[in-house]
Amino acid sequence: VRIGILGTGIVGQTLAAKLRELGHDVVIGSRTEGEDKRPFAEAAAHGELLINATGGGNSLAALEAAGAENLNGKVLIDVSNPLDFSKGMPPTLSICNDDSVGEQIQRTYPDAKVVKALNTVTAALMVEPGLISGEHSLPIAGNDEGAKAQVADLLEKFGWPRDAIVDLGDIAGARAQEMYLPLWLRLYQSQGTAMVNIHIVKG
Amino acid sequence: VRIGILGTGIVGQTLAAKLRELGHDVVIGSRTEGEDKRPFAEAAAHGELLINATGGGNSLAALEAAGAENLNGKVLIDVSNPLDFSKGMPPTLSICNDDSVGEQIQRTYPDAKVVKALNTVTAALMVEPGLISGEHSLPIAGNDEGAKAQVADLLEKFGWPRDAIVDLGDIAGARAQEMYLPLWLRLYQSQGTAMVNIHIVKG
Repeated sequence: VRIGILGTGIVGQTLAAKLRELGHDVVIGSRTEGEDKRPFAEAAAHGELLINATGGGNSLAALEAAGAENLNGKVLIDVSNPLDFSKGMPPTLSICNDDSVGEQIQRTYPDAKVVKALNTVTAALMVEPGLISGEHSLPIAGNDEGAKAQVADLLEKFGWPRDAIVDLGDIAGARAQEMYLPLWLRLYQSQGTAMVNIHIVKG
Repeated sequence: VRIGILGTGIVGQTLAAKLRELGHDVVIGSRTEGEDKRPFAEAAAHGELLINATGGGNSLAALEAAGAENLNGKVLIDVSNPLDFSKGMPPTLSICNDDSVGEQIQRTYPDAKVVKALNTVTAALMVEPGLISGEHSLPIAGNDEGAKAQVADLLEKFGWPRDAIVDLGDIAGARAQEMYLPLWLRLYQSQGTAMVNIHIVKG
């Protein structure tokens, strides 16, 4: 599958490496061109499947540069977190409570099929869940059932067991996934490792 | 131990029943008096250990009615969530992101020893964690190490194994615990049961 990744940070790089290992044809898009970095619009035009790996505060600008015509009709996995470090540590969220980046993107591009996923774990764990032994979970959310099934298939190829993938329902679930970040940051701090996640259990 | 519980909702009632079963002398405080309901100040004066089981939006008013002189020097377990149902479903949080109810209480009553705990699970599970089989976790946060140790002892008596209790550090961790609520609400909805929790795991 041809995949376009927006964002050249550790998340974009990690996902690109894994997807290429799986045999996909990946173009990474950036604000600035460079080796293995093409403009956002070129990456988005290239991809049949798209991944937003930009920072949550920059995502709408990156997608605007990508162009609606390159997004419409496509599955768009939104991995972003709206972390705002401008007010010091710990970071706050630049959007939360009654909205989320996932919802913003879906509202702005109603013809894209946005699936929020992977934003709740550190980059290395996204593509190698076995780095934590035992069961742990990955919540996903989105309006389009077919898109979520396609993303779940991809996540399985990353190593996530099907029953580890927890469907939170429509894209408003992104609010829950993004507001989990303060807990993740506290766990990172208190447990002394970014290799931390949650297993969702019920009685 | 003499315990004062502020709040007569399902959380307050459930905790009171369990604490009495464990042999504690419990007084429940309320805005309005009634059978097994005394004024906030009387419950707070009675307790050597206090529990805030009021709604997060009402907690500061309840504690003001309880009176600083009845709070100072005491361990105060804050179980509240600032859920705001006034804007429809799902509820938003009336305070979040750069503050929390737990922090507000600690700031307002610097001589109380606030420990945020139990707000991340449904009332029945608070006092009977075995209702979910297998391992699952309970985050706590607070500035006073001795107070957290005392709360952990009590949680063990409720049935929480010591290694299920995850210390998030100082009271600013309450932000993480309260912002977890949107995820809890989504899990409640998508899993079809309030008997849901997370097991915190690391690699």
